[in-house]
Amino acid sequence: MSSTFGHIFRIHTFGESHGGGVGVVIDGCPPRIPISREQIQHELDRRRPGQSEIVTPRKEADEAEILSGVQDGVTLGCPIAILVRNTDQRPGAYDEMAVKYRPSHADYTYDAKYGIRSASGGGRASARETIGRVAAAAVARQVLDHFHPGIEILAWVKSIQELQADVDPQTISPEIIESNIVRTGDPAMVETMIERIKTIRSDGNSVGGIIECVIRNCPPGLGEPIFDKLEADLAKAMLSLPATKGFEIGSGFAGTLLTGREHNDPFRMIDGKVRTTSNRSGGVQGGISNGETIIFRVAFKPTATIMSNQQTVTSSHENTELQGKGRHDACVLPRAVPIVEAMATLVLTDHLLRQKALG
Amino acid sequence: MSSTFGHIFRIHTFGESHGGGVGVVIDGCPPRIPISREQIQHELDRRRPGQSEIVTPRKEADEAEILSGVQDGVTLGCPIAILVRNTDQRPGAYDEMAVKYRPSHADYTYDAKYGIRSASGGGRASARETIGRVAAAAVARQVLDHFHPGIEILAWVKSIQELQADVDPQTISPEIIESNIVRTGDPAMVETMIERIKTIRSDGNSVGGIIECVIRNCPPGLGEPIFDKLEADLAKAMLSLPATKGFEIGSGFAGTLLTGREHNDPFRMIDGKVRTTSNRSGGVQGGISNGETIIFRVAFKPTATIMSNQQTVTSSHENTELQGKGRHDACVLPRAVPIVEAMATLVLTDHLLRQKALG
Amino acid sequence: MSSTFGHIFRIHTFGESHGGGVGVVIDGCPPRIPISREQIQHELDRRRPGQSEIVTPRKEADEAEILSGVQDGVTLGCPIAILVRNTDQRPGAYDEMAVKYRPSHADYTYDAKYGIRSASGGGRASARETIGRVAAAAVARQVLDHFHPGIEILAWVKSIQELQADVDPQTISPEIIESNIVRTGDPAMVETMIERIKTIRSDGNSVGGIIECVIRNCPPGLGEPIFDKLEADLAKAMLSLPATKGFEIGSGFAGTLLTGREHNDPFRMIDGKVRTTSNRSGGVQGGISNGETIIFRVAFKPTATIMSNQQTVTSSHENTELQGKGRHDACVLPRAVPIVEAMATLVLTDHLLRQKALG
Amino acid sequence: MSSTFGHIFRIHTFGESHGGGVGVVIDGCPPRIPISREQIQHELDRRRPGQSEIVTPRKEADEAEILSGVQDGVTLGCPIAILVRNTDQRPGAYDEMAVKYRPSHADYTYDAKYGIRSASGGGRASARETIGRVAAAAVARQVLDHFHPGIEILAWVKSIQELQADVDPQTISPEIIESNIVRTGDPAMVETMIERIKTIRSDGNSVGGIIECVIRNCPPGLGEPIFDKLEADLAKAMLSLPATKGFEIGSGFAGTLLTGREHNDPFRMIDGKVRTTSNRSGGVQGGISNGETIIFRVAFKPTATIMSNQQTVTSSHENTELQGKGRHDACVLPRAVPIVEAMATLVLTDHLLRQKALG
Repeated sequence: MSSTFGHIFRIHTFGESHGGGVGVVIDGCPPRIPISREQIQHELDRRRPGQSEIVTPRKEADEAEILSGVQDGVTLGCPIAILVRNTDQRPGAYDEMAVKYRPSHADYTYDAKYGIRSASGGGRASARETIGRVAAAAVARQVLDHFHPGIEILAWVKSIQELQADVDPQTISPEIIESNIVRTGDPAMVETMIERIKTIRSDGNSVGGIIECVIRNCPPGLGEPIFDKLEADLAKAMLSLPATKGFEIGSGFAGTLLTGREHNDPFRMIDGKVRTTSNRSGGVQGGISNGETIIFRVAFKPTATIMSNQQTVTSSHENTELQGKGRHDACVLPRAVPIVEAMATLVLTDHLLRQKALG
Repeated sequence: MSSTFGHIFRIHTFGESHGGGVGVVIDGCPPRIPISREQIQHELDRRRPGQSEIVTPRKEADEAEILSGVQDGVTLGCPIAILVRNTDQRPGAYDEMAVKYRPSHADYTYDAKYGIRSASGGGRASARETIGRVAAAAVARQVLDHFHPGIEILAWVKSIQELQADVDPQTISPEIIESNIVRTGDPAMVETMIERIKTIRSDGNSVGGIIECVIRNCPPGLGEPIFDKLEADLAKAMLSLPATKGFEIGSGFAGTLLTGREHNDPFRMIDGKVRTTSNRSGGVQGGISNGETIIFRVAFKPTATIMSNQQTVTSSHENTELQGKGRHDACVLPRAVPIVEAMATLVLTDHLLRQKALG
Repeated sequence: MSSTFGHIFRIHTFGESHGGGVGVVIDGCPPRIPISREQIQHELDRRRPGQSEIVTPRKEADEAEILSGVQDGVTLGCPIAILVRNTDQRPGAYDEMAVKYRPSHADYTYDAKYGIRSASGGGRASARETIGRVAAAAVARQVLDHFHPGIEILAWVKSIQELQADVDPQTISPEIIESNIVRTGDPAMVETMIERIKTIRSDGNSVGGIIECVIRNCPPGLGEPIFDKLEADLAKAMLSLPATKGFEIGSGFAGTLLTGREHNDPFRMIDGKVRTTSNRSGGVQGGISNGETIIFRVAFKPTATIMSNQQTVTSSHENTELQGKGRHDACVLPRAVPIVEAMATLVLTDHLLRQKALG
Repeated sequence: MSSTFGHIFRIHTFGESHGGGVGVVIDGCPPRIPISREQIQHELDRRRPGQSEIVTPRKEADEAEILSGVQDGVTLGCPIAILVRNTDQRPGAYDEMAVKYRPSHADYTYDAKYGIRSASGGGRASARETIGRVAAAAVARQVLDHFHPGIEILAWVKSIQELQADVDPQTISPEIIESNIVRTGDPAMVETMIERIKTIRSDGNSVGGIIECVIRNCPPGLGEPIFDKLEADLAKAMLSLPATKGFEIGSGFAGTLLTGREHNDPFRMIDGKVRTTSNRSGGVQGGISNGETIIFRVAFKPTATIMSNQQTVTSSHENTELQGKGRHDACVLPRAVPIVEAMATLVLTDHLLRQKALG
C-alpha cells in the first residue's frame, strides 16, 4: 500500500535506483486532458542530475516513455503508465555500501524491516523514486489547468543553512526562480548560496535548508475536514520526501509566540469576496482552503552522503568505518524545488476531484 | 473518506459538537485484546473540559459507551463502536456565531465547501471530534501492549509562547507530566506557565505553544518506504488536529543549520544491537523506525476563540463585528497532550499490524 | 477493513445481534441532501422481523436514531451515524448454540478465524448487521434522487424452490411487490408461495429461492472498467449478504447455451438515443452501464436454522447433536428483497459519485 | 481507483491492447519470496494467443520483463513492476470498428463514460489487460507457497454450451487439464468440445460456457465477515473478467431447490479436525473458509466478436451494419482457465496476508 498516493487521482510509483527503471501508474485521471511527453519531460529535466554545476554530476538522461493511457495527446481515462529507464548504473561504486550501513541513510532500516535490501545504491530509498512523482504531477498540472485555470504552484529555496532569501510570496515568479541554478527566489542571495554549496562540497561536506512553497489562486472549499485536511495531506506529502525533517504552514512554529488577538485573520468583504486582511492561517482554515494564498515551508536536512570517514557498522554487525565516495548532491534543495511543487500539485489535484465528486 | 484514519487498524469518527453525540468505529482491531470501558474513560477524562482551573469550564462528562465489538472484556475482532453523548448543549450561546464567521475558525470554509454548516458551535470542526480519536487510541494502546509490550508514548507541553520547558526525552515520566495541570515536563516551569495562561485568559486573549512527543522502545522496522513513511504518517496525524500549524521530527527545522558531517548519526554496536550514538534522525531513517527514540514536536497556534471584538463578515457577506463569548480554552495545549499521544498511538499500531501482515 | 463498503459514498457498519446495538456510519455523503428519520425507518420496517405471518415472530422494533450528520432534515456533508438499539435479547435461547456449532452457520469459521466469537446468537454474522446497510441505502436513495431523479431500483422474489414467478422486468411496480407478504412480483403465485413457506415451517424445515432485481432508467456511463465493473461490484454486494450462493446478470448462466450470433445485442438509434434491441447484456457492457435496464438475480440458500436434530461438533471438538430452537425465518427471501435493493442502491450511488469526480 | 485490486497484496494493472504495452505493479508483496521471470512467463504462455489450433491465431509473444522489486531471484518488499510490450499491432484491421460500435462490446459504453476511447482494438477493454493479472498471480502463487505450502488452485472447462464435463473436484489434476487444448477436466469430452469450437468458428460464430474452479487444502479462517467475505471477493474477481455473466459457489443456484434439511452440511470430527460430511457450502461459511474444498463456477457468454453482419450504430449516431473481421477466439474458455485461477490466487493471497496482520 505504501507506494500509493491520493484517493481519486491516485498514483502508484515503482522502481529502484539500479534495475530496469523507475516510473509511475496514474489511476483516476479524468479523460480528454491534453498531455504530451514533452510536458512530462520538461518537469523531469528540472529534477535531473547533472543539470548545473552545483548538483550531482551523474549523467542520467531520464527519458520518459508513456506506456499507456494517452492517445493523440489526450488522456483516455485509463491508467497512465510512465517509465524512465535506469541508464547510468555503476554498481561497482557502491560495493562498500553493500556491506556497510551508510549513516543517516535507509540502509539499516530496510534490512531491519525486510531482511533484505537492494544490493547497490539507494534502491527504493533513492531519490530516483521521485521521478514517478514528478512525472505524475506533470499530468496533474494539466488536470488543474483544465478544471481550474490560474492556480499557481511555486516553490523556491528559502534558506541554505543560515542564509535566508527575502521573497514576497505574492509576487515571486517562476522566471525569477528558474533564472538561477540554486532556485532561490531572492536574486540578491544567488551568488552567496552558490558559493556556500561549492565551498561545502569541496570540503566533502553537505548542507540543508528550507524550501518555501505557495499555491496562489486556489479556490476556497478544497480539503476535507478531520483527517484529510489540506494541511495534513500537504504535511504527509512533504514528509514523504527523502531528507525532510519538518513542515509548517502559515505562521507555523513562529506563530506559537503570538497571542490569539495577534494571530487571528480578520475577515473583510473585498471586491465582493470574503477575504482575510492578514494570512497567518496560510490559506487554510479547519483543513479547508479559504481562497487566500496557501504558503508552507519544508525543512531538508543536509545530504547524508558525505565524502568523509564515518563510524558505522556492517550488515553482519561489526563496527567499522565508511569512506565516502560516489557522486552526490552536496545540497539537494535546488533539485528538490520541482519535487515540492510536484507533491503540492498532486495533493491539490486529488482534493479538486474529491470536491467535484461531492459538490 | 475524510473521517477514516489508518490502513489496517482503521478508525472512522463521527459526530458534531451539538447533536446526538460523537464517537468512533474501529475496524481491523485484532481479536482477544483485553479492553475495558474504564480504560477508554480514563483517556477521555484526560482530554475532558472542566478538568482543571486552566481549561474551559464547560461541563461535559463525556461518558463512553461501547456499543459493539467487545465481550467479557476482550475484543471480538469485529468493529468496535464507541459513543459519547453530547450533553452540555447551549445553542443560545452561539446564536451570533451562526451568522457571523468567527475569524480563523472553520465557519467560512465549511460554508464555502458544503454550502451549509452546523448551526451552532463548531459542528464537525469542534475539538469534540477528537473524542473518537482518543477512545480509539485507548484500544490501540492495548493492541500495542499485546504484541509489543514496553513501547512508551509520552507527550508534554514543551513551550507556551516563549516559555520553554527543559525536558530530557529519555527520562521524562508520565507521573511528572500528569502531576501538573499544564502537562509540561519541566516542574520548574509549571507555575510560570499556569500564570501565563491565567493572565492571558483574564485579558480575554489566548496563547499557543509546542507539544513534544516521544515514542520509546519502538522496535526497528516500522513505517513504510515512500508515501507512508512513519514520519509522514505522524505529520499527517498531527496536522489533522485542530489548531496545529507545524510538525518536525528529530533535528527538524534547526537541523537545516547543520552540515552533513555534524548532522549524521554514526552507527555503533551497543549491547549487541545496531544503535546510533546521536539521534538527529529522531528515530526514523528512510521512513522506517531504527530502534532509537522517536521524537517530534507539534506547533499549536493560539486558540482562535477570544473574548474581544473582531472584524468579520456575515454569511450573507456583510462586514460586521463579532463580540466573543462562550466558554473556551485560553490555551488548548494541556488538553491536547493526550490527543497528540492518541494520534501517535494510532499511527504506530497501524504500522505494527502492517508489518505483521508482510513480515 | 472488512466492514467498509464503497469508495466515495462509503459506509461502515457495526454491531452484533446481542449487545448495545447495530448501525452504520456513512462517510462521503454530499451535503444538502434531504433525509428524514422516517424515510430511514420506512426501509428498516420493510426488513423488520415480525412484519407478517411468514417471517420470524421476533419482536424487534428496530428504531433508528440519527446521531450525526443531519440537521433540519438535510445532510451536512459530515459522517452520518445511525444507531438501532438491540432490544429483544434472549441469550438463554442460545445457550446450546454457544457450545455447539450450528451446521452451515458461521459459528465454526468465526472460532477458526478469531479464536473467539459472540457468545449468543449470530453475533456479527447475524442478519441484524444488514440494518446498517438498509439505513445507509435510504440515505443513498436520496442522493440518487437529488442528482439523477427517475432511477428505479426494484427487487422481488423470483422463485421459492421450484415455484417460479412470471414477472415483466420493464413494468413490474413497487405496488405489486409490496401488496403481498412474500414480496413476489407475480400475483398469481402469491398464495402458492405463502403456502409453501407455511408448510415447510410447520415441518421445522426451511427453503430458499431466487431474488431478481432491476435498475431502470440508469444513465449510461456508470461503472468502472477492470476491477470495479458495475456487475463486479453488484456481484460482491450481493455475495456479501448472508445466505447467498450465486449471482448472475443479464443472460447469466443460461446465456452460456447460446451462440454469439444469438447472444449479441444489436444497437439501433431509437428516439435519438443509442439503444439495444435486445438486452442479454443486462444493461452493462464492459463493466459500464449502457442505458438499458440492469437486471440481475441472486440465489439464496435455504435458511440454515432448522427445527430438526442435526449432527454437529462442539467448540471443544466432540461429536454431538444439535436440537434446533429459537425463532427464525423458514424463508429469508421476503425480508431479503429490501436488502437486495439496498445493496444495489449503495453500489449505484457510489458509482454515480465516482463518475461525478472524473466527468 | 478502478485498476487496483486487493487490500494488502495490491495490484495495479495498466495498458491498452494497442500502445506501448500492458503490465502490472504489485505493491504489498512480502520480501524474500523467490520468483523468476520464467515462472511468470510460464503462466503468461498459458493465456497467450496462438497457443493452439482452437484459439485466436494472433501472434503475441507476450514476453514479460520485471522492471523492479526483484533482485537475485527474490522479492525486495518493494513494488514489483512487470511490463509486456505490445507487438502485433495491426490498427488497420480495426478501422471500421473505430467508427462503428461492436455489439455487446464496450465500445459504446466507453464513449458514453469518457467521451473518448482507444481508436483501435479493444483498448483498455481488451482481454490483453488480463496479462497484468496473470503475471501478478504468478508472484502471488509464490507467496502462498511460502506461507502455506500445499494450497491447490485448479480451474477447468466445465461446459461448452450444453456439452458438460464430468469432473471430480477432489481428484482432478493439473496434468489432466493441461493435457488437452480445451482445458477441460473430462478426457471423454475433449474431442467433442474441440469439434464444437471448430464447427462454430468455421461458421463465423462463437460459443461460451462455464469454468469450474477449486481451491484445495485452504486453511480455515480466511475471508472477512460482512463485505469482504471470501465468496464476495471471489465473485467480484470473477465478474471483473471480460465476458463473465455469472458466479456461484457450492450449491449455487441449484441449491435454491433444496430444503434446509437437505442443504445443511453436518459437522463431524474426522482425523482430529472439524470437518463437514457434505460440502454444499462450497468451503465457505459466513464468508470465511471452513477448511473444506472451495468450489465455484463462472459463466462466460459467447465471444462478442463474430464474423457476421450485425446491426449497429456509428459513434456519430447513425444506424449501420458491421461486417466482422479480425482474428478472435471463437471460444474464450480455454484461455480463460489460467485467468480464473489467477484471480482466485490473488483473492486468496490477499486474504492470507490480511489474516496474518490480525492473527
